[in-house]
Amino acid sequence: MIYDLIIIGGGPGGITSGIYAGRQGLKTLLITKDFGGQIAKKGINIENWPGNKSISGQQLIKNFVDHLKEQKEVEIKFSSVVKVEKDNKNFIVLTSDNKKFKSLSVIIAIGTELKHLNILGEEKFKGRGVSYCSICDGPLFKNKNVAVIGGGNSGFETSLFLSKYAKKIYILEYFSNVNADKKNQELVKKNKKIKIITNAKVKEIKGNNFVEELVYDDLKDKKTKRLKIEGVFIQIGCEPKTSIVESLVDLNEKKEIEVNHFNLQTKTPGLFAIGDVNSGKYKQIVIAAGEGAKATLFACQYLKENKLS
Amino acid sequence: MIYDLIIIGGGPGGITSGIYAGRQGLKTLLITKDFGGQIAKKGINIENWPGNKSISGQQLIKNFVDHLKEQKEVEIKFSSVVKVEKDNKNFIVLTSDNKKFKSLSVIIAIGTELKHLNILGEEKFKGRGVSYCSICDGPLFKNKNVAVIGGGNSGFETSLFLSKYAKKIYILEYFSNVNADKKNQELVKKNKKIKIITNAKVKEIKGNNFVEELVYDDLKDKKTKRLKIEGVFIQIGCEPKTSIVESLVDLNEKKEIEVNHFNLQTKTPGLFAIGDVNSGKYKQIVIAAGEGAKATLFACQYLKENKLS
Repeated sequence: MIYDLIIIGGGPGGITSGIYAGRQGLKTLLITKDFGGQIAKKGINIENWPGNKSISGQQLIKNFVDHLKEQKEVEIKFSSVVKVEKDNKNFIVLTSDNKKFKSLSVIIAIGTELKHLNILGEEKFKGRGVSYCSICDGPLFKNKNVAVIGGGNSGFETSLFLSKYAKKIYILEYFSNVNADKKNQELVKKNKKIKIITNAKVKEIKGNNFVEELVYDDLKDKKTKRLKIEGVFIQIGCEPKTSIVESLVDLNEKKEIEVNHFNLQTKTPGLFAIGDVNSGKYKQIVIAAGEGAKATLFACQYLKENKLS
Repeated sequence: MIYDLIIIGGGPGGITSGIYAGRQGLKTLLITKDFGGQIAKKGINIENWPGNKSISGQQLIKNFVDHLKEQKEVEIKFSSVVKVEKDNKNFIVLTSDNKKFKSLSVIIAIGTELKHLNILGEEKFKGRGVSYCSICDGPLFKNKNVAVIGGGNSGFETSLFLSKYAKKIYILEYFSNVNADKKNQELVKKNKKIKIITNAKVKEIKGNNFVEELVYDDLKDKKTKRLKIEGVFIQIGCEPKTSIVESLVDLNEKKEIEVNHFNLQTKTPGLFAIGDVNSGKYKQIVIAAGEGAKATLFACQYLKENKLS
């Protein structure tokens, strides 16, 4: 059994690819650990999916998945992909449960995963005050003081979500300016529970059984400072797990997959990369979805031109 | 008064640009004749906007417009743009009511307009049997025989919509194969009212006061043939009206605006083109929306880097 197309990833890009592949009648397999990834775990509503003023990540992904499931030609398998290889004209996709799947074309839509700080105490206190997911763990910090590491959109959105529960939230940003959208900056400004600390180089998370203290260097006055907090939410960005495909593509310095942005194809014909995992600059739900549609239509063209399908 | 950004066009791409511009706090003017263009006039539901299994074009555009109107920084002006020029660092946008607007960046999102056949009788019988819009005129053809010119998706979708009213529908396609999606082909196949005629070179539309007959050459058996019909719906594709901006951009052979597909910028810095009007191959709602988000974020970057805003 050889599929026309294997889609790897179940975020907005991968799901949109699946919807388009089904409509084009491609024999398709979509492999993903889960649907929605980070979006399904977002703590605050999404306000930039066009046509929905405000919608929870969970609901948006549910709408996408319901739409995908209309496509009878698309099989769904829940698993992790460990390797993508090419053998002559077929791609071979290996999953963590030791299965092999063959296809004529592949779309990589695996997004990115949250970066770790790699400081003292981070590993030790994981699940005991250190978290990467406010929607999972936020309610545990009712009336407590917490720190959010990272002054980008995800740090700001995490802080806004946590303000429903926590007593006080400190946003720590390494640089002298935060990088969140103006809209998020305004919302945080209005929120009396949230305080922004810039020029903060986070050094260590301390405690006994649970987190009790965060240690950071103030890069402006060169002093080491401490915050009494019980939770640390780490939101310093993401990195793509592109090692599964590295023999077939070029990666840039951020380990993102280089593509031709006209058709989203990698250096290997028939292999495409869309959404957060590719070398596109801005990572947005609607950008990933648009690229999912585009790559699928170019995959169809590849199959036709090579008389594969 | 100089805007940060002027968006020209009110389809899914232009509206998404507006939503993103508002969220980024850009002083923005969106100029369009109407909202939704062709989509708002579509006769059958849209089934490829991710997250909506099936939605009317009118409803989808209403959702987009409601979302846009949340952005208080975005002004909307209903007008036609007749020219875009650049004077030093400012763009100057001229409208058909003789107004001039200035901005630091511009996004062109004007889509395309329906092509004419340019055959005998087309002009004469416009509004008397010749139509370009099934949703506008379809109900007039109850129990009548009609022809649809064009075997692409829009010809097929027009035919499916017309089958609610008409007695018999002939799809005429110039080439030996139709080019519609498999899904549309299956729906047409199941519909007993619709007949496909390939290798048909349409020559003339005849009648007295109203359309009575369509004359075409059968390119296979080289005979001239006639169909007794009372309506002709012309769906042979679209072309962009890019003359308004031609002094600032390169156009390809289809008169589409050439862009760098990484950032959607034209050869003029600060001038972007998105959706159906640019040189991207596949024209889809979700692709236009994704490009709207991308171009707006690159416009922000352009303003920052040039310290314009």
